[in-house]
Amino acid sequence: MAPARSTAQRIADARAILERRHADAWVASASPEGSAHLVPLSFAWDGVDATVVVKESSPTARNIVAAGRARLGFGTTRDVVIVDAALVSQASVADAAAAVIAGYAAQADWDPSALDDRDEYVYLVLRPQRIQVWRESNELAGRTVMRGGVWVDAR
Amino acid sequence: MAPARSTAQRIADARAILERRHADAWVASASPEGSAHLVPLSFAWDGVDATVVVKESSPTARNIVAAGRARLGFGTTRDVVIVDAALVSQASVADAAAAVIAGYAAQADWDPSALDDRDEYVYLVLRPQRIQVWRESNELAGRTVMRGGVWVDAR
Repeated sequence: MAPARSTAQRIADARAILERRHADAWVASASPEGSAHLVPLSFAWDGVDATVVVKESSPTARNIVAAGRARLGFGTTRDVVIVDAALVSQASVADAAAAVIAGYAAQADWDPSALDDRDEYVYLVLRPQRIQVWRESNELAGRTVMRGGVWVDAR
Repeated sequence: MAPARSTAQRIADARAILERRHADAWVASASPEGSAHLVPLSFAWDGVDATVVVKESSPTARNIVAAGRARLGFGTTRDVVIVDAALVSQASVADAAAAVIAGYAAQADWDPSALDDRDEYVYLVLRPQRIQVWRESNELAGRTVMRGGVWVDAR
């Protein structure tokens, strides 16, 4: 088992995963009735928020809008990043900020604003509140690198 | 974009993923209050049921026991297998069937029955009810290869 990474290293590794181009996140959401939904989605990260784009009619959109939150997973059992995030805004292609549309098109592997059925999609801007980062059991301690939307002091 | 796979091929591909050794699943569950949980977990597949092992006190165990179901995801955005499963049994290490313990130890990359704190773990046996398999947009049609716990007729 490798030595446990420092908090600073884990934050750097989490940022690197969030900055990856053409990557995807597993996005879990729950209905008000307590039914779990899960899909892999392309995403974009601007350093503060993660944006996903889904059809407005999808269970993911309906659940996240109703609950105001989602849980995103990246990696594998031996190299995990988990992000609990709050919905900070939602917008159709017509209403989304130009920076959100451009940022998404630049990092994700598709551009929903260019689709014929673009009016069916919604940009969901999610702000991480808690981020957990771990590999093996020796990294379970200290796995929370963001709390209350603030990176844990890594000094 | 590759041609859409046949139903038979998708079933074969889903089975191959479920049979992989030392692999993991993203496991989504929801609390009765509608809070989504998500973790990557090792799993075992015996041809009918998927077994995961978690601490009995974990959100995953509490959610799945309360809801009686979970949603499992495998792969990437471009090669997805999604399993909606019902909880068919739960057992501690002391009470689990020998075949369940041995099957899990053989396929997963750890053996909870050998741990010092094994009494804290629970084997959750999950039976797929619906399985969806797709790669690109041309595979969205026909993505459901199991319905009501029965593989779709692949002829």
